[in-house]
Amino acid sequence: MPNKTPITVAYGDGIGPEIMAATLRVLEAAGAQIAPEVIEVGEKVYLGGNTSGIASESWASLRRTKVFLKGPITTPQGGGYKSLNVTIRKTLGLFANVRPCVSYAPAVATLHPTMNLVIVRENEEDLYAGIEHRQTDEVFQCLKLITRPGCEKIVRHAFEYARSNGRKKVTCMTKDNIMKMTDGLFHKVFDEIKAEYPEIATEHQIIDIGTARLATQPERYDVIVTPNLYGDIISDVAAELTGSVGLAPSANIGEHVSMFEAIHGSAPDIAGQGTANPSGLLLSAVMMLVHIRQSDVATTVHNAWLRAIEDGFVTGDLKPTVDGRVLGTEAFAAAVIERLGQEPRQFRPVHYADAPQPRATAKPLYTRAKPAAKRIVGVDVFVHAADMSADFLAGRLATLTHQPKPAGFGLQMITNRGVKVWPGGFSETFCTDHWRCRFMGVDGDGKPRTVNHIDIVHLLENLVSDGLDFIKTEHLCEFDGEPGFALGQGQ
Amino acid sequence: MPNKTPITVAYGDGIGPEIMAATLRVLEAAGAQIAPEVIEVGEKVYLGGNTSGIASESWASLRRTKVFLKGPITTPQGGGYKSLNVTIRKTLGLFANVRPCVSYAPAVATLHPTMNLVIVRENEEDLYAGIEHRQTDEVFQCLKLITRPGCEKIVRHAFEYARSNGRKKVTCMTKDNIMKMTDGLFHKVFDEIKAEYPEIATEHQIIDIGTARLATQPERYDVIVTPNLYGDIISDVAAELTGSVGLAPSANIGEHVSMFEAIHGSAPDIAGQGTANPSGLLLSAVMMLVHIRQSDVATTVHNAWLRAIEDGFVTGDLKPTVDGRVLGTEAFAAAVIERLGQEPRQFRPVHYADAPQPRATAKPLYTRAKPAAKRIVGVDVFVHAADMSADFLAGRLATLTHQPKPAGFGLQMITNRGVKVWPGGFSETFCTDHWRCRFMGVDGDGKPRTVNHIDIVHLLENLVSDGLDFIKTEHLCEFDGEPGFALGQGQ
Repeated sequence: MPNKTPITVAYGDGIGPEIMAATLRVLEAAGAQIAPEVIEVGEKVYLGGNTSGIASESWASLRRTKVFLKGPITTPQGGGYKSLNVTIRKTLGLFANVRPCVSYAPAVATLHPTMNLVIVRENEEDLYAGIEHRQTDEVFQCLKLITRPGCEKIVRHAFEYARSNGRKKVTCMTKDNIMKMTDGLFHKVFDEIKAEYPEIATEHQIIDIGTARLATQPERYDVIVTPNLYGDIISDVAAELTGSVGLAPSANIGEHVSMFEAIHGSAPDIAGQGTANPSGLLLSAVMMLVHIRQSDVATTVHNAWLRAIEDGFVTGDLKPTVDGRVLGTEAFAAAVIERLGQEPRQFRPVHYADAPQPRATAKPLYTRAKPAAKRIVGVDVFVHAADMSADFLAGRLATLTHQPKPAGFGLQMITNRGVKVWPGGFSETFCTDHWRCRFMGVDGDGKPRTVNHIDIVHLLENLVSDGLDFIKTEHLCEFDGEPGFALGQGQ
Repeated sequence: MPNKTPITVAYGDGIGPEIMAATLRVLEAAGAQIAPEVIEVGEKVYLGGNTSGIASESWASLRRTKVFLKGPITTPQGGGYKSLNVTIRKTLGLFANVRPCVSYAPAVATLHPTMNLVIVRENEEDLYAGIEHRQTDEVFQCLKLITRPGCEKIVRHAFEYARSNGRKKVTCMTKDNIMKMTDGLFHKVFDEIKAEYPEIATEHQIIDIGTARLATQPERYDVIVTPNLYGDIISDVAAELTGSVGLAPSANIGEHVSMFEAIHGSAPDIAGQGTANPSGLLLSAVMMLVHIRQSDVATTVHNAWLRAIEDGFVTGDLKPTVDGRVLGTEAFAAAVIERLGQEPRQFRPVHYADAPQPRATAKPLYTRAKPAAKRIVGVDVFVHAADMSADFLAGRLATLTHQPKPAGFGLQMITNRGVKVWPGGFSETFCTDHWRCRFMGVDGDGKPRTVNHIDIVHLLENLVSDGLDFIKTEHLCEFDGEPGFALGQGQ
């Protein structure tokens, strides 16, 4: 065994200290070569006046060890405290949330006794970038951002996970029939990268049908990769279907730092009673051991845990299948320790192998594409205007494309909540006070032309001169000749 | 009985003609006072060169009758054909998608025999506005728009539906712990409107937990109201849980026009065989009859259908509970017709009452709020820049706030995918080529000031003078003194 690997450990709040103590005891008994550095995060730190819930010396530990085993924490209600998980995840770039969801029937009652799947959720982008604006009296906006490197990172991680864990199929779920550009990019990157993993079966499902199938036939899934919001929803669905959220582990993987934690909360109502179930955290520690290349210890711990469950030992949150085998936290850990070196007989034993060093064997996680030839061809200007018809607005705007200064644009259409209302709108279309006005660059003969930034500035200046309340802009660009903007509904 | 009510009918594609004929036969036998105007939509219209799938004279019929009973249609693959449903829904303002999801065990096998819920899905806004832009080499964006009148319309419709259908509880599902402004508005409007319906119990759930609960305990829900995307997902989950998507009806309700259709597709593989199940369309027609105030006929048809199912009659898509009772489409319709006037004995009979004219009794569906005092306090400018550090970009921008022209702004922060990277960023944060630069209005002493549109134009002009590639803007406003923009993650 080499030197001990330093890891950062936070006991957390509520039941955290109990389940972390039990987990570390099992790891030690199994011979894990780890050197924990304990940091304090969560409730005490928040209430001590640090709204982020983590002190700067704790950041330093995380950035040094790059491995974080974290107990559940309590975020106090009110007071503007930020989610520590979101902060750590986004600041340290933990791009992949990996959640195995496995049934353990008959030990754990479930309608889906054979399910065994892993959800690989993108963890940094999508609507969770938190970029929101109120734009008019009536309209609020949130930006959904999907990026090519973000898609490449998560999709490649899903396939690498599948390969190194002996998984056979990766299912991609998006809503690209509606969001053709953003979710379309995710799907496209999936199709590009899957070609590098010919031994793994693949499929794509629209998220609505996919979630419905997952809810009724979880057995048919193996690995699922999906953007952030969908992953948030389906990982809760899958965990619930197993019959116990209390057993589910998770890994948050980054290029620099990774974090391992149970998916359950801090359960303050049963804290300090010695009854909590350490399984979710213990199985998260197993994922950590694989990550730090102590796969033999991970295998030993996981098989001993499976054997203990199979032998009917459970904590009080589960129904025992054998009389008298409900144990407290410490006794359950002891039952696992007693079985170190044994394998389960009904459940399938696990066998982790140290993954090859990714950088030595696989393509890079993502590549920076060569910049495309970008050409601005127009601009969407959003206008706040109440009590105005689309036709009236269009009349004003048509003049303002060349007055007071000729700006070189023509008004192509106006939409309201995405529906084209000019030219040729329907009176039945409901209109808010938020109008998207699409101006395309045109020359003196009305032919399309490339525009530049100063043309757009001039157009905005013209709108201001007439007192129009423009509230936002979106450039319309072509990338290598491909339009980088969607048509309006009805256009 | 008064004069016959004109309705627009489209037989649709695939199994559409068979199930529509069966449905109209049942309605006629039950004494429905309707005068169908038949229009052609779908495959033939698309392939005839109309990319919208509907001809202008058909629009005229819809706008005249305001009631549309629609068979399933086939959208040809490729060729840029637009979804007819999306076009009709958005152009005619069908804001509410109402989907009852009911189990009919033992006639239909399901793990959830007692579920009986209705999903009321917002149908016009959210990410489905279809406003997408590619902004840089790496980053694609979709706008999520949530509006106050949109929220009021759908929430009020859900409560009115609950009240007139004897439902006891309305559950609201959002993700307002992350999207505090957009989903926060939906939740806030729910809280405002629920106070007007004191006899109806209410609850709010975060969509991830809510979907997981729905998937495992659908029995606990009654009416669920939710924004468009979440509604799309959970209505498929709920339909699937009932055991047969083939029985589920839907209504798309607008202020002017409403559309009724089964949720299943056109099933071209079994078209023309006379085996298709007309139940989804028939139950949609029941919803239509209630809508056009022929509730007695709706009650008669629905109870006869329940009795037929209870008596063991099914079409070939379902497993019969009594031997030899698998019927074709027409024979199944005949079995329903034979039972007109009868009530089911195990299933609970339905009893529809004509709803009071909404306008006479309830508050208006939505109100236009008095405009707030709006004040611009800054602007987010998004910049496309590759191979540039946040610190370097910040240095350039800090100068450009007052050169060449003093524009009266100070650079407050830079984020990348929503994470603050300046000032005080972490090297571990992954940065794309898409930077959001927040400028706040400041006066000569560095104190906050109100800015106007021309100040923003000048700021953009300064950026252009330095060759910076700005790609979009978002004004930062206060409404009645409340900030209309979210902080950056880590700010």
